[in-house]
Formats: sequence, C-alpha cells, structure tokens
Amino acid sequence: MWGGCFNQDTASSLAEINASINIDKRMFKEDIDASKIYAKALMMADVINGDDYKLIIDGLQEVKSEWENGTILICPKDEDIHSVNERRLRELIGEAADRLHTGRSRNDQVATDVRLWMLNNIPQLLNLTAGLIEVMIDSSEKNIDVLMPGYTHLKRAQPVRWSHFILSHAWYLRDDADLLKVFLKRTAVLPLGSGALAGNPFPIDRRAMAKELGFLDITMNSMNAVGNRDFIAEFLFWCSLCGTHLSRLSEDLIIFNTDEFGFVSVSQQFSTGSSLLPQKRNPDGLELCRSAAAQFIGNSTGFLATLKSLPSTYNKDLQIDKKMLFESFDLMSKTLEVLIGTVQTLIIDAKRCFAALNVGQLTTRLTYWLVKRGLPFRQAHHVAGRAFAIAEEKNTSIDLLSEEDRLNICDLLGDDLSEVWNFEAAVEELETSGGTAYSSVMEQIDLLKKWLQSEIKE
Amino acid sequence: MWGGCFNQDTASSLAEINASINIDKRMFKEDIDASKIYAKALMMADVINGDDYKLIIDGLQEVKSEWENGTILICPKDEDIHSVNERRLRELIGEAADRLHTGRSRNDQVATDVRLWMLNNIPQLLNLTAGLIEVMIDSSEKNIDVLMPGYTHLKRAQPVRWSHFILSHAWYLRDDADLLKVFLKRTAVLPLGSGALAGNPFPIDRRAMAKELGFLDITMNSMNAVGNRDFIAEFLFWCSLCGTHLSRLSEDLIIFNTDEFGFVSVSQQFSTGSSLLPQKRNPDGLELCRSAAAQFIGNSTGFLATLKSLPSTYNKDLQIDKKMLFESFDLMSKTLEVLIGTVQTLIIDAKRCFAALNVGQLTTRLTYWLVKRGLPFRQAHHVAGRAFAIAEEKNTSIDLLSEEDRLNICDLLGDDLSEVWNFEAAVEELETSGGTAYSSVMEQIDLLKKWLQSEIKE
Amino acid sequence: MWGGCFNQDTASSLAEINASINIDKRMFKEDIDASKIYAKALMMADVINGDDYKLIIDGLQEVKSEWENGTILICPKDEDIHSVNERRLRELIGEAADRLHTGRSRNDQVATDVRLWMLNNIPQLLNLTAGLIEVMIDSSEKNIDVLMPGYTHLKRAQPVRWSHFILSHAWYLRDDADLLKVFLKRTAVLPLGSGALAGNPFPIDRRAMAKELGFLDITMNSMNAVGNRDFIAEFLFWCSLCGTHLSRLSEDLIIFNTDEFGFVSVSQQFSTGSSLLPQKRNPDGLELCRSAAAQFIGNSTGFLATLKSLPSTYNKDLQIDKKMLFESFDLMSKTLEVLIGTVQTLIIDAKRCFAALNVGQLTTRLTYWLVKRGLPFRQAHHVAGRAFAIAEEKNTSIDLLSEEDRLNICDLLGDDLSEVWNFEAAVEELETSGGTAYSSVMEQIDLLKKWLQSEIKE
Amino acid sequence: MWGGCFNQDTASSLAEINASINIDKRMFKEDIDASKIYAKALMMADVINGDDYKLIIDGLQEVKSEWENGTILICPKDEDIHSVNERRLRELIGEAADRLHTGRSRNDQVATDVRLWMLNNIPQLLNLTAGLIEVMIDSSEKNIDVLMPGYTHLKRAQPVRWSHFILSHAWYLRDDADLLKVFLKRTAVLPLGSGALAGNPFPIDRRAMAKELGFLDITMNSMNAVGNRDFIAEFLFWCSLCGTHLSRLSEDLIIFNTDEFGFVSVSQQFSTGSSLLPQKRNPDGLELCRSAAAQFIGNSTGFLATLKSLPSTYNKDLQIDKKMLFESFDLMSKTLEVLIGTVQTLIIDAKRCFAALNVGQLTTRLTYWLVKRGLPFRQAHHVAGRAFAIAEEKNTSIDLLSEEDRLNICDLLGDDLSEVWNFEAAVEELETSGGTAYSSVMEQIDLLKKWLQSEIKE
Repeated sequence: MWGGCFNQDTASSLAEINASINIDKRMFKEDIDASKIYAKALMMADVINGDDYKLIIDGLQEVKSEWENGTILICPKDEDIHSVNERRLRELIGEAADRLHTGRSRNDQVATDVRLWMLNNIPQLLNLTAGLIEVMIDSSEKNIDVLMPGYTHLKRAQPVRWSHFILSHAWYLRDDADLLKVFLKRTAVLPLGSGALAGNPFPIDRRAMAKELGFLDITMNSMNAVGNRDFIAEFLFWCSLCGTHLSRLSEDLIIFNTDEFGFVSVSQQFSTGSSLLPQKRNPDGLELCRSAAAQFIGNSTGFLATLKSLPSTYNKDLQIDKKMLFESFDLMSKTLEVLIGTVQTLIIDAKRCFAALNVGQLTTRLTYWLVKRGLPFRQAHHVAGRAFAIAEEKNTSIDLLSEEDRLNICDLLGDDLSEVWNFEAAVEELETSGGTAYSSVMEQIDLLKKWLQSEIKE
Repeated sequence: MWGGCFNQDTASSLAEINASINIDKRMFKEDIDASKIYAKALMMADVINGDDYKLIIDGLQEVKSEWENGTILICPKDEDIHSVNERRLRELIGEAADRLHTGRSRNDQVATDVRLWMLNNIPQLLNLTAGLIEVMIDSSEKNIDVLMPGYTHLKRAQPVRWSHFILSHAWYLRDDADLLKVFLKRTAVLPLGSGALAGNPFPIDRRAMAKELGFLDITMNSMNAVGNRDFIAEFLFWCSLCGTHLSRLSEDLIIFNTDEFGFVSVSQQFSTGSSLLPQKRNPDGLELCRSAAAQFIGNSTGFLATLKSLPSTYNKDLQIDKKMLFESFDLMSKTLEVLIGTVQTLIIDAKRCFAALNVGQLTTRLTYWLVKRGLPFRQAHHVAGRAFAIAEEKNTSIDLLSEEDRLNICDLLGDDLSEVWNFEAAVEELETSGGTAYSSVMEQIDLLKKWLQSEIKE
Repeated sequence: MWGGCFNQDTASSLAEINASINIDKRMFKEDIDASKIYAKALMMADVINGDDYKLIIDGLQEVKSEWENGTILICPKDEDIHSVNERRLRELIGEAADRLHTGRSRNDQVATDVRLWMLNNIPQLLNLTAGLIEVMIDSSEKNIDVLMPGYTHLKRAQPVRWSHFILSHAWYLRDDADLLKVFLKRTAVLPLGSGALAGNPFPIDRRAMAKELGFLDITMNSMNAVGNRDFIAEFLFWCSLCGTHLSRLSEDLIIFNTDEFGFVSVSQQFSTGSSLLPQKRNPDGLELCRSAAAQFIGNSTGFLATLKSLPSTYNKDLQIDKKMLFESFDLMSKTLEVLIGTVQTLIIDAKRCFAALNVGQLTTRLTYWLVKRGLPFRQAHHVAGRAFAIAEEKNTSIDLLSEEDRLNICDLLGDDLSEVWNFEAAVEELETSGGTAYSSVMEQIDLLKKWLQSEIKE
Repeated sequence: MWGGCFNQDTASSLAEINASINIDKRMFKEDIDASKIYAKALMMADVINGDDYKLIIDGLQEVKSEWENGTILICPKDEDIHSVNERRLRELIGEAADRLHTGRSRNDQVATDVRLWMLNNIPQLLNLTAGLIEVMIDSSEKNIDVLMPGYTHLKRAQPVRWSHFILSHAWYLRDDADLLKVFLKRTAVLPLGSGALAGNPFPIDRRAMAKELGFLDITMNSMNAVGNRDFIAEFLFWCSLCGTHLSRLSEDLIIFNTDEFGFVSVSQQFSTGSSLLPQKRNPDGLELCRSAAAQFIGNSTGFLATLKSLPSTYNKDLQIDKKMLFESFDLMSKTLEVLIGTVQTLIIDAKRCFAALNVGQLTTRLTYWLVKRGLPFRQAHHVAGRAFAIAEEKNTSIDLLSEEDRLNICDLLGDDLSEVWNFEAAVEELETSGGTAYSSVMEQIDLLKKWLQSEIKE
C-alpha cells in the first residue's frame, strides 16, 4: 500500500507493534460503508466512472459479506482494516479497486470509521442507561413505603424512603445520558475529505457524504480533522464519570448487602461462591461494577496522556484510541447489564431497613420542633445535641430522658415531645421539592418517566 | 457550630487536616450572597421575621465588606468559610444570626457556593479562550501568504498555509468553548434546600432562590444534591482536554522555534534566559503551557479517583474539590494568558518557512497528476514513490530526474512535469472545504468570526 | 541573572507563571548548604580564593539567618530560591558573590537542592510510618483475645482475631517503609557539577561534595543529571501506594465504625459533627485519610504525564516537581499523624465483635471436620454448603439442623458435631505461619518489633 | 466448585463479566506447578496419602501437557484457570482430585500463581533492558568522535558528544534495571497457605513450598496475603517510569530524525509509509514507543484507583490485576524490542550533527575564558550575553564582532579570542566526572559494561 519508496522490509518487531488489524477489524462495516460513500462522491465528481463505481460498490458489498460470514482471510501484510479491505477488493474486482483511495488517506479514513462506529454503537449505552433508570423507578414504586436510615459519612443521619435513595442514583444516570447525547452530537462531524492532512483536491461533495453517513456536520480544517481525537477523550471521560456513579451505587449496595446492614440481599443469580468457604454468597457482580470505574479512569487518563504534548495533525501515537474505545465500550455495556439485573432481582428487606431507624436520627426533627417554638436554630441544634449526649451518658435513648433531665437542658423540652419521635412524620415533613416525602418522590418518578419518554424513547 | 453532642476537644492533627478555610475563603462572596437569598426564602416562608431578616442582610453585607477590606479575622476554630461567616455574623448582629442556618446544612450550602463561584468565574475562561482564537485569526490574516511544510509524524508531508496551521488549533478552542458552555449549564442547578441529605422541612421557594442567584434549575433529589460533584469532575476534565490542545500548540511552537526549524521566534517578552549559558533565550512560557496539561490530568484523575467507590451522599472525601477547582482554574487562566501573549508577539519567519519546502513534498501532487492522466491512484502512488526513491539513490531531487529515468519508471512520466513542481499550486488545488487553499482558509476565518460574534460576544 | 542577551522585559503574564519562589523558598536551607559546599569545591580547585570563600560562607550564613528569622525580603524580580539567595548574597558581600555560580547552573543546583531536601525530610515519614505500626502492635497486644468475623467480599467469612486484622495493615506499612528506604538511597546521588547539561570545566571534587552533603554517590552523566526526576516520580508513587494502604485501613475502620457494624468507635477527638444534624459524630479524619490516596494518585499520574515524551535534559516543564513533592509530603505527614491518633484512641467493642460471629462462619470448619473423617475436600465443601442452604430454607441455623436433615445430606453428619461449633477453636486451628491463631499472631508481633528495632531505630 | 449453598443459576451477564479464563489461562503452568507443590505439602503433612499424591502429580502433568499441546477444552462453566485445572484433573484421575484443594482457597492460589508467573517472566524484561543499554554503548563507541549540539529547552546550548547524549538515556535504563530487581525480590514472597483469608489448619510446611517454587520468603499474615497486590502496582509503576524514559528517548530521536534536524535517519526497517503521500518514511515505531508510556500510566493509575478505598482482604475488584499485568508486560517487551532494533540500525549523520554547531553555543566557553582572566562569573556571563546580543543586532556572529564592538562591551574582550571558538576544545574542557569530554564518556562506558557484567550477566 505504501512500499513505493522503500527498499527494505519492515522489521518483524515493528510489524508486530504496528499492526492494529486484530483490534480495528471490528469496524469492518463502517470502513466499507464509508468507502462506498466515498466512491460515490468520486463518481459524482467525475474522478471515477460509472462502471468502476459499480464494480467498487459490488466488490465492497462482497467483502462485507465475507466479513459477516467469517470467510475473509487476513494476510500477514494486512496492517489494519483499511489494508485488508482494499487488498481484498483488489483481488475481487481488479484495477478498479486501485481508484478507490484517490485523494483519500488512511488518516481521514480512520477518523471517519471510528466516529461512524461510535454513532452506530453508542446509542446502545444510552438504552442501557435508560434501562437501569427504569429498574430503579420500578424499585422506587414497589418500595415506596420502605423507610430506612439515610447516611452521611456512612453514619445514620435522617430517615428517608428507599425510593428516595435509589432515585438519588437514577438522577446521576439521567445526567449521564444527557451528557452522552451532547458528546454524540460532537462526534457526528465528518472528517472524510481531509486527506492526509492538507485537504482533498477533487470536487467531492463533503456535505453530501456527511448526510448519507448520518453525520450532522463536516470538519472545517483538515489538519485538525486528522489529528483530533476529542471524541474519544470525551467518550472515555464519560465512561469514567458514569463509572464513578455506578461504583458509588455498587458500593452502597455492597454495604447494604452485608450481614450487618442486611437492608438488601443480592440475588443468587448475581452472586458467586467460594472455593473454600461453603456458606459464601459474594456480590462479585457488584464488586466488578465497582472496579470498572478504575479501568475507565485508567483508559481516560492514559488517553489524555497520549494526546498531551503530541505534535499536531496525525502521529502514530493515536493508534491506541480504538483499543481504549472498544475496551471501555464493552466494559460499560457489561457493567450496565449486570447492574440492571442486580437491581431488578434485588431483595429488599423492609423490616431490617425499618429496624435500623432509631430516635437518634430524629434529633434534627427535635431541632425543628424547637425552632417552631421560637428557639433560634443554632441554639436549638445545640440543645438537641446536648440532649442526645446526655441520653447516651445515661445509657438511654433521647426519647426516654426524664423530664428533669430534659428541663435541665432547656425549658422548652418540658413539653410533651411524643410527636417528635415519629419516623414517618419525619420523612413526610421533608416535602419541599427534592426532599424525601412521598409527594416529592412521586414528583421525581413522574419527571424521570417523562424524560425517558421524550429523550430516550423518541 | 456542631459541638452539642461532644464532650472532648478535637485533636490538633484532625483540626489541621480538616480545616479548609485557607482554600474556601475564596468563595466568601458566594457564601454570603447565597446566605442572603436563603434568608429571604426563610422570611418569605415565615420562618424568620422581617426584623431578623433585615438584621441578617445588613450583617452579611458588613461581613462581606470586611472580607473585601481585608479586615476580617479568622479564628483558630473557624473550620471553613461557612463557620467564619456565621460566627462573624453572630458577633455583629447577635441572636438573629442563629436563625440563618434553619433547615440548611453545610452540605447543601457548600454545593451551592461552589456552583455559584463557578457561574461567576468560569466565563472568564470563555473570554480567554475566545481571546486566543482572536489572536490566531489575526495571525492567520496577517500571514495568509506564508507557505510552509505541513507535517504528519513530524515529517514533511505537503505544503500548507501558516494560516491553515494556526487555525487548526483555533478549531480545537472553538470546540472547547462550546463544551464549556454545556458544562456551565449543567452546573447552574441549585442544590440549596436539600439540607444535610434528606430535604428541607420549611416551605421555602427553591425555584425563586435559583432565579435570584442566576441558576437555571433546581436539583430534584436531596441525597443526590449533597453528594454530587459532577460539575467539578466535568470542569477538571474540560481543563484536561483543553489543556491537551494547548500543550499540542505549545509543542508545535517549541519545535518551530528551534534553531533547526526556525519558522518562528518566540518574542523576548515570552522567553527567559539561563543562569549559566549567556546566549540562551528559552521558550519557558510555552514549556509551562505544555506541562499545564499534565497538572490538569493529575487533578482530573485524582478527583475521579476520589469519587470512585465513595458511598453516596456527602462524605468528607469531597472536601478536596475546591482545591482542585481553584488550582486548575488559576493555572488555566495563566496558561491562556501566556499563550495569547506568545501568539500575539510571535515572529514568523516567512522565508525560513518557504525554504523548508522541497519537491519531495510534491509527490502527492505528482500522484494526482498521474491520476488525472488515467493511472489508477494506487499505481500512481507507487510510481511517484519509486520516482522519489530513485532520485534519492541518484543523489538528486525528483524534479531533476532524467527523462530516461522517468520513462524507466512509467511511460506517463515522459511528459513535461514542470507544472507539478509548484508549491503555490499544490496549496491552491486543495480547495474543498477544510483544505488549505486560500478560499478554504478565508471560509474558516469567516466562520470563526461569526461564531465569536454570536456565541461569545452575545 | 540572565538578562545579558535580552533587550526586552519579561511580560507580566510570563513572569507570573514562571516564578516558583513561593514554592521553592521552602528549600532555602538546602540551597544555601549546597552553595557552601560548592564554594568550598571552587576554592579547593583554585577557582576562587580563600578571602572570597570566607566572604561567601559568612554571607550565605547571614542569608540563612535572615530566612530563619523571617527578615529576608523577596523582590519582584526574584524568580526562585536561587535568585533570591544570590541576589541577597550580592547585597551583603558584593562582588565575591558574583563568583559563586562559576561553572554551576540552576539546572544542577535545583536538582541538588531537591534531592538534599528529600534526604533531610523524608526520614520523618519513615518515623511516622513506624509510629503507626507501633500503635497497631499496641492495639494487637491489648486486644489479643478479641474475636471478630474476618471478611472477604465484605461478607462474613471466618472468625479471626482483631489483632490479626489490625496487623494485616501493619505488614503493608512494613513493606512501605522498606521501599521508602530503597527510594531514599536512589535519591542520594549528587548531580552538582553537571552544569547546565554538559558538565563542569573546573577541577572540582564532586565525590568530596557528595560526602559532605550526605550523598552516597555522584551522577555519571550530566545530561541525564539535569533532566532526571525519577526520585520525584518514585516518591510520588510511594505516596500513592502507601496511600492506598492507608485508604484501605480507613475504609475498614469507617465501616467498622458504622452503627450497623459497631466493632469500633472513633474517638470524639478524631470525629467532627454536623451543622444541621445534632447527633452526628462523623469520622471525618478517616474520610480525609481515605481520600488522600486520590490526591497522591493525581500527583503521581500528573508527574508521570509531565515526564512522558519530554525532550531529554532540562525543560521548564520539570518546574512542577517541587509543588507536587511538597504537597504530597505534607499530606502524607498529616494523614499518618491522623491515623496514628485515630488508632491510638480507637475504642474497640469486644462484645459487638464477638456478637457478629455466627455458625455460618464455621462451615469451613465443618468442611475440615469432614475431611478429617476421610471425605475428599471438594465433596466435604459441597456437603457443608448444602447443609448451610437447607438450614437457611428451614429458617434455622446449621448447628440446629435435625439429625434427619443432616443424614439426608451426608452419612457422616450423623455424628455429634458439637465440637465444630466453637469459634475459639476455629481460630486456634489456623496456627500455620501467617494464620490467625494466637501463636501466629504473637510471631507477627515479635517479627515486627524486631524489624522496628533494627530497621527504623538503628 | 462452589455451588453447594446455591439454588439458582448464575445470570449470563454475571457469568460473562465474572469469567477471567481468557486472561488467566496464560498462567496454566504456574497454576499447575504451584498445585504440585501444594499436593506435596499436603502429603508431607499426612493430609493426603502417597497414592493420591502420585495420582495428582501425574494427573497435573497430563493437564499441563494438554495445555502445551493445545488439546485442553475450556467448558462454559470454567470461570478461571483454577476451575479448568481442577475440573480436568477430576476427569482424568477421579476422586483424588477432590482432595487437592484441601485447606486452599483460590484467594491464596491466585496470588501465588501471579507472583510465580512474574518471577518466571519478568527477567526477560531485565534482559531486554540490558540489550538496549548494550546497543547504546555500541553506538557511543562507534560514534565517539561525533559532536553535536546539546539542548536544554530544545534550544542549542553547548556542544556535546553523540556518545554522551545516547549514554544519558542508558543511565536511565541502568536505574530501571536496578529497580526492577528490587521489585522482583519483593514479589518473591509466597502467599500459599493463607487459605481464603484466615490461614491453613493443616501442618503444611510453607517455607519448604517457598523454596521449591523459588520464592525467597513467605507472607506472615494471611489477611494481608490474599488482599495484597502491591507487587502488581509496583510492576505497573515500573513500566510507567521506564516507559517515560523510553518515551523521552523516542521523542529525542523523532526530533533528530526530522528533515530540519537531520542528525539521524531511522532505518527503513523501522519506518513505515503513507497510503496517500508517496515520499513518506515515518518513524511509526518510535511514535508507538513514545505512546507506550501513556498506556503504562493508564494501567498504573487505573490499578491504584482499584486499590484505593478497597476493603481489606480479597474483593473481586482485584481480578483486573492480571489483565493489566499481561498487557503492560507485552507492551513493554515489544517496546524494548523495537527500540533495540531502531537504535541498532539508526543512521547517524555526523556531518549534519557538526553543522548544527555554531559559535553562539560557545558563549559559555567565552564566559569561562573571562572568568579565568579574573572577571567574576556573573559579570562574565553578562558580558558574554551582551556580546551575543550585539552580534545579533549587527547581523553577524559573536566571533566576528569587531574589536571596537568588543571593547565597548568589556576591556578583556580586546584580547585574541580565537582559542575560544573551538568546539572540540569546548567539549574536552568538560572533563570532570559526568561531563562530555572523551575521558568522561569512556569512564561511563566502562562503568556500564562492568555493571552489565556483574548485575545482569551474573
């Protein structure tokens, strides 16, 4: 393909590190589809004639079939998917194949193929993200009456609804989906027609190619077009960010699944056992979902480090992009699938959730109670804190403090406090938008459903 | 502020690692502005009365003045900006100050302050990005006739215009600015009213607060709101990505500024010297701009690693967000300023640029010449490659090959090739959109100017 | 210092990003000490005379005193610690000061200063690491009889001693200390005498300088010496690796400190409270220690990205090294101090630890019991697993299964199993080296104490 | 293997993400060798009898042969290499196979296998590192007389020998090799006998197993042993650090290989061409070696992020270790091989190297000349700088300044300066250890050869 000015063979060690065919063959369809459109553009520009065009199109279709049927052979000299397809096309249709690459370079070709692959495949991740939101909505509807402690610093803070908890993760995924759509639009810009770096000398219609391939726009500077891998960096970051959300969800569920918390049981379908300890049912799936974030971070960081300080336009350093793209894509798909299944089959133990509530988590409600009786908040907070500490010293709980003790702390505590010690009421008073009250949770469910309807199912 | 339930003092080592005041004091204005709005919401909801409200507003204004005048004192017990402001307000206005925090937590407060700080300050980066694009447009207009080699793999590839080269970097910045605007919109969602994690029990109008503070929306789940730092992660990634663009620009200019390339001279204002080597004028500014990307990557990676596997809602681990935010913001500001100055004062040596062109860079034009005479592209490419190699073997250049040599390679080469060896024509034939021809470069300048007008100057 | 060949002033934006004085002034002592030794080497080589030498030494001592007393003034033109010290020396002693830098460059000077600073300061981290091991040993001795569940996958696995658990973290720190000592030795190689990049033309005795400054060797290639920052990269990695150990310890303790586990209580001295929730005592210290790892990882990654693809010898990109070094050093010091205090004051609840043991964690012991009766291990494992599952189905525990049920599973289970259900015995049977039995734990304590004695206290 | 307590099948999505067999099968030999030794330990401890032992050893040998011959079949339920080997052993020898895993867990087994694999394979990297040093030494010997500019900030600084330049990279590799040997020793600590987390209840001789498998020591705490992956983190960091060295070498050679520098030509065996530009010979190999560092950094960072905050002992998150290990190992092997070949076949253009020297690079020598005549260094530096700037203003070079001009700058410049303008002398005066003079370079070669002899070839 490029041997004209060479008198010596490539060293085997170079050939080995240089070949990308085992990775980029995954884009065979996109490489062929983009070649078809490029052939059409060459024909429309009178660079190739109609007969050659027909030969090329039919030949490319045949090559695609061979890929689909698994009958194509990869030769030792085939560096990459572009080399295989051009070489095989030549074998099938002869000299006409030599005209296909006119004015094109692998530099604009590969940038086009990768973007096209992303446009074709990333919507699957959008669907999986939506699927995870859906099982969370489902869980929140089924368990709307389950109360449990809400945590900050992993210490019991205030009672919340299970539904509020699980939806707190759904909102992350809503934001993730919205961002992924932004990134997809930024990816849908066609570099084809940029040549090796300086442009294309034939009057091909780049906007027509863009339209036919499903791109929204064309790149406006060829040197930028061949060296730009922002769409990869953005996708890898997206995986990292969404990955942190999934890892936080996984961490929560792993902790809730401990014998000590016991709020949930990961189903047996999503657990595995131990080769030594017979009783073990481990949440391996969740652990792998937790660790996925680390791999995404590794790929994202590694790719940014690849781009850093790189001279502009195309350098071979960029070749790593596809490995990182496919690896992150696959891992993200699997991670989302495992989490969908895990949440779907999760067994929620409403009794243990409720049993974990204790009056210590109502000191904030006591504070509000005092505020409503006129005590400035900061003082009310202090009073409630003292009451909690004194109950603790006396080995009792705050609702069982004697009237004498209560009055020693603050006059207002002499009143009947029984209405304070009510978990359901504590939850229901938080009814401002975003709070854990029933009405607020239902509002969240409604909003998320509408969003799914309009943004994902459209 | 929180000592009610404590009987023991904080260890000094904990106090030291826990305190964030030296970092978060930078948000004093935002903390106070958000507190004013919160006070108003409490008053509108009848939680505090008009007199207290007035006291609080005036007091907060006074605290703000003290910050602005540098007269405020930070006490050893002041952990953070919220503690200082509340403590100082108490000193100034007495008990009314104790009512300000009613229903609020530092968890929703700090998330609000940071987002507000970003809304207030990040537009400066947008302006600097636009400023860098502007000096690039300026350079491209002034040097529209400067031809130079375009490079791939850092080897001379094809002749291009300087303007095409410098604009290839401007397009990266255009994309950066567009992305930053997306991220800013995602940041403009108000968490205030989420309390510690479960919501706010008073009928405050969160949408009214959002409007007054310049937010576009409110968060819909309090547990998400207090533990969500995606806006930080997104900004740090933005710095990393934009940073890689700036590092690639810097690398290009550092290389072009070598004695060997000599295409540009970094001005003395943007160079520094050596303590030992008297003749040295080093591009330290560009080197620091190159390395900035590494710091951004470090912060971005470090912050993602912070979020990874973190239990949901608020954990103290999140405290690192502001250090990384401010550090990256400052470094990005300085980097953009140095690059604006460097590009603005850059001396471009048109003669050395042109002198670096040689006919070897016209083999692609020879290929096209052959294609136009009917030779299939892949064969034409091979012919041109052979001609180049044979000229090299004969210690001559390809345009000086004898007719005999040329005919030995390919019949078509017998014709007069003199029109091929024309750098200007080689540049001008690349006139498809995105190419390096004059018309295409002017189209780019036009598009970028319109974008600046509509998107930045709006 | 370097203005001879310059006709124009440095732009303010460059001056700002270029200045490192606010960071590197921390090395004032090392800069002065190395300058003294360099002056001595120049005198011994007859490059400066005895009078000038005396002036320089006394002058440098005076500059050092000014730093120590805080009376030194930094001028706007002072870029870095080297500039300040040379400028101030000139003011104090006049022309003799101009002779100090003969043959030296800031390139070899700064590499020397940083290495020397590390040799002077990093031993503190060794001591803190040893200090943390010591409080762990102490905890393991005091709580040798405390039994608790050991976890894999955060699920109860087998009973272990608290001491075995806490020592599992001590061994990490032992390895960390050993590695830090290796890195320190690699740091103790003197670059002074390498000039800007090519060496020193005066017959200075580099090995004598090394000896006087406490270095073990000298660098053998000047181009390498001025561009090499491996000692920084190694230290930052060390912080990352040790940081992951400390974060895993922190995570364990945070989980054990939950209301649900309740194995430990973090002391009030190492907890903080909430501005809204009066009852909260949060393990903020442990959370900050957990997150420290992320910052170390960020710095380590960022610095490796700085070095990646950098042209060899000195480039200004390297300037970031000291910021990352000092930041990581300080954070590591604070993290170790907080963890020492937290472990030292940790309240261990032996009753709750023991209460978390249940017979499900003895299925492995049941397996061994079956193995000792001749059943092949894999079959015994299956039998024990079935017994556990059947007990679960019958809502009972495995030790309470009826004889009929047991015989249905396996003939051997007809025997009396009561000896199996013994937590203490389960722990004591694991007496091979490294196991959780008393003897093995005591062996660990003994080994660690000996190591502390010989490796740290030497 | 672990299904006893399960009533439900594993979900297919979990099975897919959970399976590691496609990666860890690479350790089949180590898994089998460690199993043989474990079987022996069980027999010596009378846990299994001699007949079963013989069956197991022969059976394992047969399984190993099947792996080597490629005849082994992997079944859908085979999660990992341990499962395959135990399942296949069962098929071959029946019930005796069920006794092999007695007291062992996959947790201590896999930690053992990975460490053993590293002990077996990493020495290859040591050899390749030594091999790269050797071709550098060879290049330095062959080109000892080649003078070229030395660079700082990528600007010509002072003349140096090519040999000094290429050895500056060799010293990095020497340090890398030394560090890798340290890490290997830290890896050679046997975890086998730690069980799932708590130890082994049978009197197996762990030290005997260590000795037979080539380990230097045994782990002393079972909970640490099964959760510790420091040896992976250390190796991945080693790849990152060595990778940065190789990327800096690659960057230097890529720049020296440009048409503008022209100091070297990468051989055609280590170049590739362009699909569009016929004349191109691109240094793809060096670019891939440059980018390798980014992948190493990605893996290192990703793995540290995996470990960060992980609860102690074994969690499934650790499964990623082997993918990162093998990937980095393979990439490092290939990178070193390509660099060995590239350096070995590199064509050095002594004429262009020398032609790049100019008298501007001798201003430091002029400074020293002035110093030797009594002018204090800082003043001499200023004088030389002024002379350089004035020559520049007059469009001449510093050696051609008129006597009048010279005297205007400094009296001392009135003397004959011709001895100053001598590149060879400038190089030879830098003869202190580590300098670029002939004697110093020969000393370096001698030291490196001795080190190779004693440390690598031992």
